[in-house]
Amino acid sequence: MKVLLLAAGRSKRLKPVQDKNFLSFLGKPLIFHQIAQIRSFGLKDIIVVGGKHNLNAIKKLTAEIDPRIKVVEQKDLDEGMAGAVLSASRLIGNDAVFVVSANDVVEDNAFKLILKEAKNKGFDSCILGKRVSSYFPGGYLKVRSNGLISGIVEKPGAGKEPSKMINLVLHFHREGARLVSAIKKVKTARDDRYENALGVLISEGARMKAVPYDGFWRTIKYPWHVLEMMNGFLNELSGIKKGRDVQIARSAVIKGKVYLADGVKIMENAVIAGPAYIGKNTIIATNALVRESEIGENCVIGFGSEIARSHLGNDVWTHSNYIGDSIIGNDCSFGSGTVTGNLRLDEANIMVNIEGSKIDSRTTKLGLITGDGVRSGINTSFMPGVKIGNNSFIGAGIVVAQDVEDDKFVYGRTELMIKDNKAKADKTRREAMRSKVKGH
Amino acid sequence: MKVLLLAAGRSKRLKPVQDKNFLSFLGKPLIFHQIAQIRSFGLKDIIVVGGKHNLNAIKKLTAEIDPRIKVVEQKDLDEGMAGAVLSASRLIGNDAVFVVSANDVVEDNAFKLILKEAKNKGFDSCILGKRVSSYFPGGYLKVRSNGLISGIVEKPGAGKEPSKMINLVLHFHREGARLVSAIKKVKTARDDRYENALGVLISEGARMKAVPYDGFWRTIKYPWHVLEMMNGFLNELSGIKKGRDVQIARSAVIKGKVYLADGVKIMENAVIAGPAYIGKNTIIATNALVRESEIGENCVIGFGSEIARSHLGNDVWTHSNYIGDSIIGNDCSFGSGTVTGNLRLDEANIMVNIEGSKIDSRTTKLGLITGDGVRSGINTSFMPGVKIGNNSFIGAGIVVAQDVEDDKFVYGRTELMIKDNKAKADKTRREAMRSKVKGH
Amino acid sequence: MKVLLLAAGRSKRLKPVQDKNFLSFLGKPLIFHQIAQIRSFGLKDIIVVGGKHNLNAIKKLTAEIDPRIKVVEQKDLDEGMAGAVLSASRLIGNDAVFVVSANDVVEDNAFKLILKEAKNKGFDSCILGKRVSSYFPGGYLKVRSNGLISGIVEKPGAGKEPSKMINLVLHFHREGARLVSAIKKVKTARDDRYENALGVLISEGARMKAVPYDGFWRTIKYPWHVLEMMNGFLNELSGIKKGRDVQIARSAVIKGKVYLADGVKIMENAVIAGPAYIGKNTIIATNALVRESEIGENCVIGFGSEIARSHLGNDVWTHSNYIGDSIIGNDCSFGSGTVTGNLRLDEANIMVNIEGSKIDSRTTKLGLITGDGVRSGINTSFMPGVKIGNNSFIGAGIVVAQDVEDDKFVYGRTELMIKDNKAKADKTRREAMRSKVKGH
Repeated sequence: MKVLLLAAGRSKRLKPVQDKNFLSFLGKPLIFHQIAQIRSFGLKDIIVVGGKHNLNAIKKLTAEIDPRIKVVEQKDLDEGMAGAVLSASRLIGNDAVFVVSANDVVEDNAFKLILKEAKNKGFDSCILGKRVSSYFPGGYLKVRSNGLISGIVEKPGAGKEPSKMINLVLHFHREGARLVSAIKKVKTARDDRYENALGVLISEGARMKAVPYDGFWRTIKYPWHVLEMMNGFLNELSGIKKGRDVQIARSAVIKGKVYLADGVKIMENAVIAGPAYIGKNTIIATNALVRESEIGENCVIGFGSEIARSHLGNDVWTHSNYIGDSIIGNDCSFGSGTVTGNLRLDEANIMVNIEGSKIDSRTTKLGLITGDGVRSGINTSFMPGVKIGNNSFIGAGIVVAQDVEDDKFVYGRTELMIKDNKAKADKTRREAMRSKVKGH
Repeated sequence: MKVLLLAAGRSKRLKPVQDKNFLSFLGKPLIFHQIAQIRSFGLKDIIVVGGKHNLNAIKKLTAEIDPRIKVVEQKDLDEGMAGAVLSASRLIGNDAVFVVSANDVVEDNAFKLILKEAKNKGFDSCILGKRVSSYFPGGYLKVRSNGLISGIVEKPGAGKEPSKMINLVLHFHREGARLVSAIKKVKTARDDRYENALGVLISEGARMKAVPYDGFWRTIKYPWHVLEMMNGFLNELSGIKKGRDVQIARSAVIKGKVYLADGVKIMENAVIAGPAYIGKNTIIATNALVRESEIGENCVIGFGSEIARSHLGNDVWTHSNYIGDSIIGNDCSFGSGTVTGNLRLDEANIMVNIEGSKIDSRTTKLGLITGDGVRSGINTSFMPGVKIGNNSFIGAGIVVAQDVEDDKFVYGRTELMIKDNKAKADKTRREAMRSKVKGH
Repeated sequence: MKVLLLAAGRSKRLKPVQDKNFLSFLGKPLIFHQIAQIRSFGLKDIIVVGGKHNLNAIKKLTAEIDPRIKVVEQKDLDEGMAGAVLSASRLIGNDAVFVVSANDVVEDNAFKLILKEAKNKGFDSCILGKRVSSYFPGGYLKVRSNGLISGIVEKPGAGKEPSKMINLVLHFHREGARLVSAIKKVKTARDDRYENALGVLISEGARMKAVPYDGFWRTIKYPWHVLEMMNGFLNELSGIKKGRDVQIARSAVIKGKVYLADGVKIMENAVIAGPAYIGKNTIIATNALVRESEIGENCVIGFGSEIARSHLGNDVWTHSNYIGDSIIGNDCSFGSGTVTGNLRLDEANIMVNIEGSKIDSRTTKLGLITGDGVRSGINTSFMPGVKIGNNSFIGAGIVVAQDVEDDKFVYGRTELMIKDNKAKADKTRREAMRSKVKGH
C-alpha cells in the first residue's frame, strides 16, 4: 500500500503565518508528526506531494526521517487534491493508495479504523467519517443503510445534513489506478474534482465504506487554529522533561507538563507553568513567565516578560513584554514595554481580516499574528487580532490597530510641545517621600 | 436608648466612588463596622436612616447582622440631619436618642466618653467635641466655663475659633421628642437646620455638655479620604491571618500585617507587604506586589502588577499594571502596561475636580479614581487624580489627563505612517548580541 | 618631582553629562581614582589644575585625600594643556614635572614604565606611547631608531602613521622650567601649543624618550565612553563585597562580582547580576534586576525595574522601567512604564548629536543620556542615544526622539475622542475567563 501525504497547500488564509506543514509543535514540524504517525502503523511506502514553495524543505526533512520516502511536486496548486493524486500517479501505479492530508491531525485510532476496514476485501474504498454533534461547514457523507457511501454533500447547511459524518481526508482506495482513471474522467478543474471523482467511482459501482470516527480532529485553516493545534500537542506532554545541558536557577519554578529542550536556560525567579514546550538553547530570563505556550529555538524571553497561550517561532526576543494568545513567526523581536492586546474592551469575539474579509475567530482572546523578521520598538501596543507581515518593522509608542503588509516600516508622528520648565525638583519633598518607601 | 445611625448621605463629592457606607474595609462595608462598634457597647435598639439609593442594601445588611435593627427611609435628602431625625421621629418616640454619623469613624473611647456623661442626669444632651490643634473648616463648639455648650459656630475662620473643639456627630439627647420638637420649630430647610435646633434647645434651657475627645477621627468626604480611612483600618490588623483554603506558593513572601480571606491564592514570587487585606477568592499572580492596600473579592492581580497604597473593589483584574494611591471600583479591568501616574513631575499637590471646582487633595501622591465597570486598554496612562465614571471604557495607548463621565468610550487617534522597509534584520549582529546576554 | 594632574577640561562633548572628573566609578569620582593611582607610586607632590567650574569640588576632594595636594586654577581654558602648565609654573619652579591627564585611565604599568625611564639621566623627557593595532584619530609619535622622539604628528590618517604609538599624556620632563620656557616660545594660542612646545624642546636638543606601552587605555570624550570606563572599573571587582548595614532579602539573588555599599537594601526576588556596584543607602526593590551597572547613592530602583549596562548617578528613582546602556545623572526619576530604547530596529550603529554634529557611537546598543534633575512621566519612550538636559521634565506617554536642552518641559498633545459607550461588561464572559486563569 502506498500512502499519499498531501502537503502542497499554500496556507493562503494563514498569511503571514508560514506554511503550516512546517509550523513547529513540540519542537518538530507538523508534517514530521504526520509522517511519524503514518510510520507508526508500519506503513513505509510514503509519497509526499509538495508545492514549489516547500518542496526543498520537504525533501530535506524526509531525507532525515527515511530516504525511502518519495517526494513529488504538484505543479498546478489550483488543481487541489485531484492534482496531487495525478502528480503521484506514476508512483502509485496499480497499488492500493491511502490518501492522507498533512494538515488534519487525528488520533491513532482513526488510522486503525481505516486500516482495519481496508483488510475487508468487500470494500473498494474506505473514507473516514468524523461524527459531529453540531453543524460544520464541510463535506458530509451520504450513507446508505449498509454503511456504504452514496455521495458527498458539500456544506449542506444546518439541518440539511445527510448524516452526522464529515468527510476527513483519510481515504483508502484498493486500486490506485482506478482512482486516477476516475479523476481523469472529471473534466472540470475545480477544487472539488477529487470529490467528483469519488462520485464517478460510486456510480461505477465501487463499494465505498464510511468509517465512523468519534476521536479528536484538529486542522489549521486560520491563524488562530495554530493555537488550538498547539494546545493539542502540549497536552500530550507528561510531567517535566529536560534535554541535555539544561540550566535552571534555584529560584525558578517549573510546574505542570513542561518540556525543556537541550541547552535551555531558565534564570532566577522565572516561572514555567505547563503545559509548555521550550525549544533548544532558548533562555527564559529573570522574572519571566511562560504558560501554556510553545517557544521555539534560540529565543530569549527577556526580563519580566509574560508569554501566555502563544506560539513563538525560533530566534524570538522579548523584553518586558506581554504576549498573549499570539502567533509569532521566526526571528522577531519586541522592544521593552510592547504589549499585545488580546481581549476587546467589550469582550466581543475578535474579528480578523482574512483575504479581504472580516472572519470571526469565535474567541474573545486573540493577540498578535506575525510573519518572520518582525521588529517592534518600545511601548508599542498591538490591538487584538492584528497581523504584521514578514520583515515589517513597527516603531515605538504607537497603537497598531490595522494589519501591516510584508516589508513595511510603520511609525507614529508625535508632535512634542516644548516650553521652559519653571519647576525645580524639591529635595525636601523627595526626602519625605523616601521615608515612605519602607513598604516597598 | 435609641441609636440613630445616619446613613442617607449621597456621597456626591465622592463620585464616581460609590456610596461610602458600602465601601469595604477589611472585607466589610464601612457601615457594618459602625454598627458593630455601636453594638459592642450593648446598644441594641438601632435605627438606620437611609436614602432611596441605599435603602435595600442597608436592609439586607442589617437583616444579616440583627433583624431587630430598624431601617427608615429619609425621603428628602436635602433636609440633611434634621430630615433624618424627623424620618425616624415615630420610632424614637419619647426615648433618649443617640445620634451617630455613619461616616465619622472614631475610637471606642469616644463612645465611652459620651455614654459615661449620658449617665449624668444633670445634662440634657452630650455632644462629642474633637479637640484639634490646627484650624479645620467645620463647626466649632462654643463652650461656657462650666463645660456647657452655648452654641455652634460654623467655619469661624482660623484664629476666630471659639474653642478647640469640633462638633462630631456623636450626640446624646435624653429626650428625643424634645429634639424633634426643636427641629420642627426651625422653619428653614437649610442643611444646618439640625444645628439650629440645638440652638433652640439651648435657648430653651437645655444643658448641653461638650465632651472633649482627643482620639482619632476619620471621615470620607473626598475620594482620597477613602485611602486615609483604609489606612486606619489596615493598621488595626495584627500579624498574618489566613482564612480557609488559602493557597500560598512556596516562593511567595507575605510580610507585615496581612489578612488573606478565604480562598485567596498567592502565586510564585508574589509579595504581599502589609498592612494589606486581600478579599475572598482573589488571586495574586506570579511576580505581583501588593503593599499597603485593600483588594476586594474575586480579583485577579495579574502577572507583574504592583498595587501600592490603593483601595480596589471586587472583581478587579490587573495585568502588568502599576496602580498606586488609587481608588478603584468594582468590576474594573486594566490592560497590560496601563499605569496610574500618582505624582506630578513638579511634585506639587494633586488637584481634583469635585463638582466643578479644583480641590487641593493636600497630598503629592494620588493616582486614579474610578467608578464600577471601568475597562482600560493596554499601555494607557492615567494622570494623577483623574476620575473615570461608571461603565466607561478607555482605549489603548492614550494619556488620560481629564475626568471621564459615566458610560463613555474614550479613545485616541494615532495616525500611522507606513513606508517601505529597506532594512533587513542582520543575523550576524544578532548573534553577536546574543553572546552578550550572559548577564541576563 | 612634581606631578601635574590636568583636570581643567570642560567636558563639552559630554553634555549634559557632568564634569567627567567627578563621575563616580565604584563609588568614587574618577579624579579620586587618578590621584590614588599617582599616590600609590609614592608621588606626594601633586598639583591639580582645575577650572572655575570645578575648582571648589577639586579643593574639597583633595583636602579629604591629602591637604598637601595643591590646586591651581587655569583661567583661560582655551589655552589647553599649555595653559595648564603655565598656570602651575610658579609651583613647578625648577623641579622635574610629571604631566598626567586626569581623564586617561591606564594600568599601573604605564606609570612604572615612565618612572623607570625617568631614572635614566640620559633622557630629558619621557612620553608614554600607547601602541595601537588599528588607526586612531590622535597624535602619533615619530620615533628615531634610537627610541627618541623626533616629533608628534596629529591625526596623520590611516596608513600614514609614523609609528604605532599614540601620544598619551603621561609626560615626564626633568626640568619643568625648560618646559615652561619652551611653551612661552610658542606664540600661538591654539590647543596644540603644548605639543608645539615639545617640538621646540626637541629642536633645542632635548632627548625625549618614547616609552612603548601595551596595556589598556580608557578615556572619556563622548557620553558612551562613560559606559566603557564603567566596565573597566566594574571588572576590577572580585567576588561579593558588602558594606555595613546591608540588608538582603532571603529571596534576593546576588551573583558575579558585586559591591554593595553601606546601607544598601536588596528586597524580595531582586537580582543583582555582577559586575555591579550599588552605592550607599540605595534600595533595590522587589523584583528588580540590576546587571553590569553602577548605581549611585540614595537611589530607589523600584519594583520590576531592570537596569542593564548603565551608569546612574545619586538619588535616581526608577519604577517599573527598563534602563539599558544609559548614562543617567543625579536626582533623576522615571515614571512607571517609561523605557529607554537602546537598539535601533535596523540594528545599525546609534548616532548621537554632539555639538551640532551626528557622531557615530560605534555601538548598536546605546540608551538614554541625561543631565541632573531630569524627570519623566509614565509610559514614556526614549529613543536610542537621546540626550535630555539638566532639570528638564518629560511628560507622560510620549516618544522622545530628539535631544532636549536644559530646563525644558516637554509634553505631548493627545486628542482624545469621547463617545457614548454602548457596550456593557458581560459578567458571564468574565466568569468563563476567570475559569481559564488556572495557569497563571
